[in-house]
Amino acid sequence: MVAESRLALPCGRFLSALLAAVRVFIFKQFANNIFLILLFFKEFSSFVARTNTCGELRSSHLGQEVTLCGWIQYRRQNIFLVLRDFHGLVQVVIPQEEVIEGFLLKILCEAPVESVVRVSGTVISRPPGQENPKMPTGEIEIKVKTAELLNSCKKLPFEVKDFVKKTEALRLQYRYLDLRSFQMQYNLRLRSQMVMKMREYLCNLHGFVDIETPTLFKRTPGGAKEFVIPSREPGKFYCLPQSPQQFKQLLMVGGLDRYFQVARCYRDEGSRPDRQPEFTQIDIEMSFVDQTGIQRLIEGLLQYSWPSDKDPVVVPFPSLTFAEALASYGTDKPDTRFGMKIIDISDVLRNTEVGFLQDALSKPQGTVKAICISEGTVSDSQFCFSRVESFSLSQEVLPVFPKASRNWNSPVAQSILEEQRSGLIRLMEIREDDVVLLTAGEHKKACSVLGKLRLECADLLEARGLVLRDPTLFSFLWVVDFPLFLPKEENPGELESAHHPFTAPHPSDIQLLYTEPEKVRSQHYDLVLNGSEIGGGSIRIHDAELQRYILATLLKEDVKLLSHLLQALDFGAPPHGGIALGLDRLICLVTGAPSIRDVIAFPKSFKGHDLMSNAPDSLPSEELKPYHIQVSWPANSEAEKSSLNHLVFK
Amino acid sequence: MVAESRLALPCGRFLSALLAAVRVFIFKQFANNIFLILLFFKEFSSFVARTNTCGELRSSHLGQEVTLCGWIQYRRQNIFLVLRDFHGLVQVVIPQEEVIEGFLLKILCEAPVESVVRVSGTVISRPPGQENPKMPTGEIEIKVKTAELLNSCKKLPFEVKDFVKKTEALRLQYRYLDLRSFQMQYNLRLRSQMVMKMREYLCNLHGFVDIETPTLFKRTPGGAKEFVIPSREPGKFYCLPQSPQQFKQLLMVGGLDRYFQVARCYRDEGSRPDRQPEFTQIDIEMSFVDQTGIQRLIEGLLQYSWPSDKDPVVVPFPSLTFAEALASYGTDKPDTRFGMKIIDISDVLRNTEVGFLQDALSKPQGTVKAICISEGTVSDSQFCFSRVESFSLSQEVLPVFPKASRNWNSPVAQSILEEQRSGLIRLMEIREDDVVLLTAGEHKKACSVLGKLRLECADLLEARGLVLRDPTLFSFLWVVDFPLFLPKEENPGELESAHHPFTAPHPSDIQLLYTEPEKVRSQHYDLVLNGSEIGGGSIRIHDAELQRYILATLLKEDVKLLSHLLQALDFGAPPHGGIALGLDRLICLVTGAPSIRDVIAFPKSFKGHDLMSNAPDSLPSEELKPYHIQVSWPANSEAEKSSLNHLVFK
Repeated sequence: MVAESRLALPCGRFLSALLAAVRVFIFKQFANNIFLILLFFKEFSSFVARTNTCGELRSSHLGQEVTLCGWIQYRRQNIFLVLRDFHGLVQVVIPQEEVIEGFLLKILCEAPVESVVRVSGTVISRPPGQENPKMPTGEIEIKVKTAELLNSCKKLPFEVKDFVKKTEALRLQYRYLDLRSFQMQYNLRLRSQMVMKMREYLCNLHGFVDIETPTLFKRTPGGAKEFVIPSREPGKFYCLPQSPQQFKQLLMVGGLDRYFQVARCYRDEGSRPDRQPEFTQIDIEMSFVDQTGIQRLIEGLLQYSWPSDKDPVVVPFPSLTFAEALASYGTDKPDTRFGMKIIDISDVLRNTEVGFLQDALSKPQGTVKAICISEGTVSDSQFCFSRVESFSLSQEVLPVFPKASRNWNSPVAQSILEEQRSGLIRLMEIREDDVVLLTAGEHKKACSVLGKLRLECADLLEARGLVLRDPTLFSFLWVVDFPLFLPKEENPGELESAHHPFTAPHPSDIQLLYTEPEKVRSQHYDLVLNGSEIGGGSIRIHDAELQRYILATLLKEDVKLLSHLLQALDFGAPPHGGIALGLDRLICLVTGAPSIRDVIAFPKSFKGHDLMSNAPDSLPSEELKPYHIQVSWPANSEAEKSSLNHLVFK
Repeated sequence: MVAESRLALPCGRFLSALLAAVRVFIFKQFANNIFLILLFFKEFSSFVARTNTCGELRSSHLGQEVTLCGWIQYRRQNIFLVLRDFHGLVQVVIPQEEVIEGFLLKILCEAPVESVVRVSGTVISRPPGQENPKMPTGEIEIKVKTAELLNSCKKLPFEVKDFVKKTEALRLQYRYLDLRSFQMQYNLRLRSQMVMKMREYLCNLHGFVDIETPTLFKRTPGGAKEFVIPSREPGKFYCLPQSPQQFKQLLMVGGLDRYFQVARCYRDEGSRPDRQPEFTQIDIEMSFVDQTGIQRLIEGLLQYSWPSDKDPVVVPFPSLTFAEALASYGTDKPDTRFGMKIIDISDVLRNTEVGFLQDALSKPQGTVKAICISEGTVSDSQFCFSRVESFSLSQEVLPVFPKASRNWNSPVAQSILEEQRSGLIRLMEIREDDVVLLTAGEHKKACSVLGKLRLECADLLEARGLVLRDPTLFSFLWVVDFPLFLPKEENPGELESAHHPFTAPHPSDIQLLYTEPEKVRSQHYDLVLNGSEIGGGSIRIHDAELQRYILATLLKEDVKLLSHLLQALDFGAPPHGGIALGLDRLICLVTGAPSIRDVIAFPKSFKGHDLMSNAPDSLPSEELKPYHIQVSWPANSEAEKSSLNHLVFK
């Protein structure tokens, strides 16, 4: 079944690209469900007072009478006017003849830039030599007959031109102007298109049901990052959930079989760069599915919805276990667009005389690890010293340069024996221009340090002009076999869920739950794209007894808060699993935007503020009364409070 | 342009119905954008451990080896088992041969009803005479070879059978069981399908961009029904908006041209029957559009997305002005599925001797109105007296029965002169079995009373077996030309917006704004279906000066709260307008569900409670600290508070 559906996808994706751009009419029905279909282009000018968009006009429109609506982008010598709409730019010729009424000239010549006008006229060829091949509409212009000023523009806080740089704070304050930029239009439209294709794939091709789940919910156990909403009942609060996790599992118990939702989620993390207090995930849950089923579904989903202006997605995605990812990349979200993998060189250096390596190897869990930075010396042989220093506080890192004087040049490195050097060169395939970074210590810690250095070095090399990470490459990766539990940070003797308490244990490890739970692997899987986690999910526990054991005995959670879910598992819950994709991050990577704020229409600043409308804001205390709450002013804010009182009780 | 798109719609709708049910492969491309397309059925069993759904098996599957997953619906004589999934029911024959392993028999014969099983076997014909024509799979059954118990079901709080009646509280408490019912599966799947088709229409056919707007926003002026969310800054609150109104207008200023969103909205109205604190609207905004443009768009949208098992939607929808709706139906949301219109009989009764009619007509605004209830006497000539009485407190209503003794039988009615009677009979087309209800007074009040009585009488007649409102009929109606302002309830000398302050005045009435603003009509429009308002929208003000005048001078609002919007209008805002459809109510009407709670997966009770999870809930006060709030316990709830403290500080 899966194989058949994968085969079908390239065709499906092709159709989807077409459907996204065309209008569809069924022409004639043949036997056997075969239809002849006529495809027309998407209708952007239906229902409104224009005949065309500015950006769509071409030589094929020559001679047509058109009516356009748009913004004045700029004006040249009172003869040419460039009109802009979401679709693009078009040149309008302002008539110079005496017969033209004065008010038309006045509108076209005097209205400020960014004013909104409607013009009607004829599509004509530009005079020979005046074509603009850089402009999609560059072969034609509009000979205007009538014009109407729909709205005049006052003096702008900044010019709406892509080449004019603005601070992000200014862009967010005047977001409605920033949205007029080519880049924001592209990002938001690509997002809309891609989500639409995802819906087609899930809903129309694979029978998923789009179901809305509540956002006014209750606190979940451990949900310390949930916004609270006072209700009209004294002391009772709703919470905004971090995900529809409980609801999607309950929908499976309810027999909905295949659920998806483009779900708004909330997480109050205070100030965090490149996080948003509200974000969107493609939320999916299926009954009777296993890990492979979810993985094939998601690969198909991304392949089908992938923008047609990018290289197609190749499936299936490669997969690494959590342990492999850590050992080779020092992270559970490896950027697999480039190499520089971590290599265990403990065996080569077993007899080293270098002090900190010797120390490390003498310990039971001690290892020596290294990464080889290809062409690391190309532009500056000392380049990584400063970076390495910033890590030496937590872990000693030793840079080694094979090239300089054909000997290994760092003082400590010189104590590495000749046979060890040649062993290293063989094992790590070291070349002349490379730099090797060594560290020693406990496996996980050593990997983690080198994993961070690997990314830092890649940034440095790219800042110096090398291309390590092809910007057109999208490197997907599954990371699987995570541990089910981690030691609690504040109390390492106790366990907490590595992801969430509903994750099913790996079938091979079930018995370990009762003996060595810390060794149990889970059926959790993460989807990683170019080193960012863009999704995660798991097969869930559908057995009520197992769920109770994990919650109450292993995690010591208060099961009362989850009694409805435990009860639901008792009443014929099917085996089920799911996944959630972080939409903002995914679109950010696809568009190559520098921040997720560039793929969200009205994002909050990193402090959680809406700089345009000034949210959050003060409220008169009488508006809090129906909710039976009052503000607890911090002791040191009395002055602030009294000034606020002025403000809010006006 | 509009005409062309209307012509296209029947075809588009046909394709949409197909696309919703099929998988699509492009077969071959011809010239001129003509494609030959093969259509296959939607794949419900991709990626999972079944070959088919229970409900899809037919005689065409005979002989196939299938694997099914589902719930045990019931068992007969340990020979037959009926298995259920979301798609339907299928009969499984439990093998009686000795060779079958004991555990298979045990599973199939001993697992409780609603346990989840997977069975594999062969599709065979039912023996002649044992076919069940009422069951879509009634010609076949499954001869089982292997079976697996996936999850056993404990004793249920109620049987999952549609014919078993449950209280709504019980259904909501065990919502995951209630969702297994045929009706809930149908409602949620129809909702998903219909929204998907709306997206296809807007996004794929008409170039709309699906844009997500924030739900963590700030208080809007007059937004007294907005939930508040404390932030981590002392005294600063977000609010959950009642609609994306400001954002959608700002998107137009941002040049997005055509926006839509299936938007979650929030309204805190305390306890209200058949309202939900969170609800969903199809939210739409367009630039360069007029009222007619929006109306044609929405007609096309509903026609395209209308379920194929209902009668097609006929467009364009009829239209009434607000004044006409009030005069004929006594309401701004008339149920136009039946007549019984209000008729002004003032002229006929000008010389009446009936006291209260005479009184009313002697006043300057006095009128006499009546409705004629067809066949009102069919089953009980006195039927409306009790209803009429309940209205007589606010307004006197006089029932008149032409039939009884061929004379008009109520004591007061006998004072109506013979010529007035015949005038009335002519004007109102009164027949023998009809009942006439008269009232007198000021136009609006008289209409309003008769409008309510009209609906009451329809309910009564239908309770007695007459069919006034065909349940298969969907009667759409536009109501237009609303007043822009209404007198404030608490201070009738001041004005408030009839809808919201961004609504544009009617072009013919602009000058009245400065002289008699209370007479200005707006460019607001409501969409009514079968007497329920399912949508509303308007052309917006795009002129900053006009918006400032209305907000500051006429409405006396604090414009500071809206300074970002006013500023946006200054910077080249295009003319724009939009609409929002109430999705929950619309789906409720389409499915014929008794309540909107039946078309929402996890609704709140009318008190705003989630009866399944017990939300809203108490919170330990330390969880409120990061938000700088504390509970203000009402004076009379000390006992309750101390008991709660026990609870929350455990």
